Amino acid sequence: MLNVKASQLPLFTTNENPKDAVVTSHKLLSRAGYIKKQSSGFYVYLPFGNLVYQKLEQIIREEMNRSYAVEVKLPILTDSELWMKSARWDSMGKEMMRMKDRHDYQYVLGPTHEESMSWLAANFLQSYKQLPVNFYQIGTKYRDEIRPRYGLIRCREFVMKDAYSFHADDQSLNETYDLMRQTYKNIFLRCELDTLSVEADSGAMGGSGSEEFMVASEIGEETLLLCEDSTIHYRANQEKAEYIPAVPYTFEVSSHLPEKKLTTGKKSVEEVATFLEMEIRNFIKTVIFENSDSIVIAFIPGDREINEVKLSKITGHRELEMAEESTVVSVTKSESGYAGPYLLPVENNKKVIVQNKEKTVHLVYDRNLRKRGNLVTGANEKNHHFINVQEGRDFIIPEEQKNYDIVKAQAGDLTPGYNDKKLVSTKGIEVGHIFKLGKKYTDSFNIKVLDKNGKSFTPTMGTYGIGLGRTIATVVEQKSDEKGIIWPESLSPFKYYMVSIYKNDEQKKVFDQLFDELVSHKISVYYDDRNESPGVKFTDADLTGFPYQLVVGKNFIADGTIELKNRKNGQKSNITLKDIIENNV
Amino acid sequence: MLNVKASQLPLFTTNENPKDAVVTSHKLLSRAGYIKKQSSGFYVYLPFGNLVYQKLEQIIREEMNRSYAVEVKLPILTDSELWMKSARWDSMGKEMMRMKDRHDYQYVLGPTHEESMSWLAANFLQSYKQLPVNFYQIGTKYRDEIRPRYGLIRCREFVMKDAYSFHADDQSLNETYDLMRQTYKNIFLRCELDTLSVEADSGAMGGSGSEEFMVASEIGEETLLLCEDSTIHYRANQEKAEYIPAVPYTFEVSSHLPEKKLTTGKKSVEEVATFLEMEIRNFIKTVIFENSDSIVIAFIPGDREINEVKLSKITGHRELEMAEESTVVSVTKSESGYAGPYLLPVENNKKVIVQNKEKTVHLVYDRNLRKRGNLVTGANEKNHHFINVQEGRDFIIPEEQKNYDIVKAQAGDLTPGYNDKKLVSTKGIEVGHIFKLGKKYTDSFNIKVLDKNGKSFTPTMGTYGIGLGRTIATVVEQKSDEKGIIWPESLSPFKYYMVSIYKNDEQKKVFDQLFDELVSHKISVYYDDRNESPGVKFTDADLTGFPYQLVVGKNFIADGTIELKNRKNGQKSNITLKDIIENNV
Repeated sequence: MLNVKASQLPLFTTNENPKDAVVTSHKLLSRAGYIKKQSSGFYVYLPFGNLVYQKLEQIIREEMNRSYAVEVKLPILTDSELWMKSARWDSMGKEMMRMKDRHDYQYVLGPTHEESMSWLAANFLQSYKQLPVNFYQIGTKYRDEIRPRYGLIRCREFVMKDAYSFHADDQSLNETYDLMRQTYKNIFLRCELDTLSVEADSGAMGGSGSEEFMVASEIGEETLLLCEDSTIHYRANQEKAEYIPAVPYTFEVSSHLPEKKLTTGKKSVEEVATFLEMEIRNFIKTVIFENSDSIVIAFIPGDREINEVKLSKITGHRELEMAEESTVVSVTKSESGYAGPYLLPVENNKKVIVQNKEKTVHLVYDRNLRKRGNLVTGANEKNHHFINVQEGRDFIIPEEQKNYDIVKAQAGDLTPGYNDKKLVSTKGIEVGHIFKLGKKYTDSFNIKVLDKNGKSFTPTMGTYGIGLGRTIATVVEQKSDEKGIIWPESLSPFKYYMVSIYKNDEQKKVFDQLFDELVSHKISVYYDDRNESPGVKFTDADLTGFPYQLVVGKNFIADGTIELKNRKNGQKSNITLKDIIENNV
Repeated sequence: MLNVKASQLPLFTTNENPKDAVVTSHKLLSRAGYIKKQSSGFYVYLPFGNLVYQKLEQIIREEMNRSYAVEVKLPILTDSELWMKSARWDSMGKEMMRMKDRHDYQYVLGPTHEESMSWLAANFLQSYKQLPVNFYQIGTKYRDEIRPRYGLIRCREFVMKDAYSFHADDQSLNETYDLMRQTYKNIFLRCELDTLSVEADSGAMGGSGSEEFMVASEIGEETLLLCEDSTIHYRANQEKAEYIPAVPYTFEVSSHLPEKKLTTGKKSVEEVATFLEMEIRNFIKTVIFENSDSIVIAFIPGDREINEVKLSKITGHRELEMAEESTVVSVTKSESGYAGPYLLPVENNKKVIVQNKEKTVHLVYDRNLRKRGNLVTGANEKNHHFINVQEGRDFIIPEEQKNYDIVKAQAGDLTPGYNDKKLVSTKGIEVGHIFKLGKKYTDSFNIKVLDKNGKSFTPTMGTYGIGLGRTIATVVEQKSDEKGIIWPESLSPFKYYMVSIYKNDEQKKVFDQLFDELVSHKISVYYDDRNESPGVKFTDADLTGFPYQLVVGKNFIADGTIELKNRKNGQKSNITLKDIIENNV
């Protein structure tokens, strides 16, 4: 659809922001008539929104095809059996939408398609000659967000381009992974979207090596850490970032034995530090987690927060939650607030009974507690703490834990690899994600391929996703002004918005003819031929935000002059039909 | 994607038909590697299948846009509230797939989008100036078929193009309806698909005037009635077709009064007719239905079947089922098999109690029982029938029922409007459907639009659907031979399938260069560069069914000769690269 009139394709502009709109893209896409909420987390793409969506789909398809990815179309509703095979039927929780058919058989409204694509690969891959192969689709996905919000940024139904590659070895996976990184950069470049690619934790996907494409934004739900020196390419999701303290902890041998102090009523590290007049960074913070079969007791420096993602990854425990008070009492023999590694009444790998259930205890120490003396810690006794605690003497961090990093990094810490550069933080919205999955799914689906010698092997796998709605929304987050959206030409529904100013049908007829002329030259133009005031049309032209505006009025009738306005910088110039046709200015 | 090599885009061909495949399109699309079943009623579009799907999507989009229809994208998962508003939450039954979100709120996996689109119209339509408008989308739909089968023909998840138009008056609706009919003809013409457009009953859609686009096929699930004279354009779905008997019933006054006959043990019309030596067409067949609040007793000529769709439409009753024996006994005071209009112990519009529930009785007479004497009918008494029953004397068809037509028409009946032409029947698969919906939904959604004088009115509505998967499958049903599919160029994944016959890498390099040359000239070609025997490649070329095959071997190396084979007629000719580039032969 290159060109159309307002009388054929109606505008859906409105003066009112949706009541629940708090972010720019949600407000502008709604007011400019691109989207409309139907129910919580479910959006209609209105005619202009659909045109933007299709342009983005086409950009993605072209770039994926250019990278020899192969497009397929998988069912949205996927068989529960596939999810049982990968064990994600249980682990995906309530965010995964499920339903039963008329025979009470369970299906999943696919949030992602690793299972489905692995099933496909298991059906068709036989020989190393077919590898590497990278299947992709552009399709609808579901995620039952507790709190859908921000318009297209956090929906329950959304479109993703998701790709899944299969490889004979890691080298091949790395090549495709790098190719996809470049493909994503190309896609976002064509959308004129500034993204940061960021090291990420691969979380529930269960992978090894992954990178997120983030759009820096105050409304982002993820915290990114970047090097303060922008020439240094260090970017990490806070969930993944390594913690390197800017001021080193003091590694010294304590000259005193542990001494028990009465700290009646003081529980938090801050309270006790103030009370004892000790430095908070010399404290040991003890955090106790549990799940259905384990209790994890983590020890970190008192001045920092624990990074639960890094902790889970190290221990391999899923679904850890803060321990209940009864569990704390069972393992420390004291109420909460007084736990510590010295004289802790439980040992690593021992089983304890809490609430009639046997659980295994795991003690996990952050590396920044090693070889330190003068530490302060809870005494595992109500209203008491120890000072002068020495690692290696009063408690011992096992050799295999000597590099454990379970502290949440933050702005002000050092950039890993650069001990004179600090980290700064920013918030970000994830628009794309590339992962090395390894063999998690190819093993689950028992994918076997024959190598050159006829010996069977299990391929390794990568996955690569882009959210289309989020991409559209974040482009608007980055490109707008107080009057409305400012589309890049690559995504704009039309190149030109033609405002006609006429007083009678005779004048209108001249502009109708001009439009027909533009159409015959395949110029992408939206012609606002409504019988409305110039003010209304100018307002809608700015709000809808096509890159160029053509204003035709009495000057055009007099001498063929058309006013061209650049939406981005507001610059105006007078041109003629010939200029448009010949130069497509 | 204009061109690609087998080493980049793998073939998914196989020698085996799916176990459940009984129809040509299911077998060939599977064997040729276009589709793969994931679970019952859910199909993957493999790379070639996806290319066909996208070509069809593009054809439909172009033709819809040409008709000034406006594309949007509605959520697939729709709010149950919308379905309550139209009362289809209850009436759609088990075919409509439903689910609950994490808050136990109900959603529908949309089988169709009248509700959703009416909601959209209610939000945006304000003025007659916005009318007519025709919104469409190309999106996924769900129908929980009891027995999914025939590959893409009867799926549970499928893609439809569905359009919904809104109008100020019937004339405008008729214009768009006619435009859509033409648009559909254009679409099917571009797909080279032979369709019949057939008058249809609009069933659960609740409309007035509709037409189906059917593909004649033995595996069709609908029966079509056509005039034996193909120059006469009468085509109707059996559910809709008017019944006009080829041999008129005798309208005569009986000279005798009704006479009761003992017919012990004879129940069916056929048994009694044989026993009494009376003509079956002089019998009255009595059929008793019921639903939760009504009992409908229908009377038709003994030689015919009842058309329940026409009956429901006339009486306005939904969900009629055959009456239970207890109901029959309640209303006829006899066991089933002996009901009849003469001396029937219940009257029209009277209430009766059956199984502790009050139901209203409705008597419905087919017009072919009017003014007839010598009728034979059950006596409402076990083992007894009456002969010499006279309409107008022994039972009376009310004046308002004098044109009621509730008999199922069939081959051999007369073509309505042509009393010397008979009907013939054929089976058909529905690929498209156009409806005049009227105000059913615009009323339910309280859509109000202001007319020229500022007075508000409710627009009238039309809806127009095409099934994409069915269209693809029926094209294959019509276009194949024993070797495989024969695609029309408009839908084929590629125009050319290039078979290369080489003995060493040096020869292969020549063909690789030829392919690069074709690519540089934007020729749509799939290059089978596999290291397989010529036989394997020829078989796959025929099976996958692109319209033209290019065979390159030693002749090409010797003098640049390429063998061109037309897949449809098998004709071969020798051409050169220049011929392809210049004439795109």
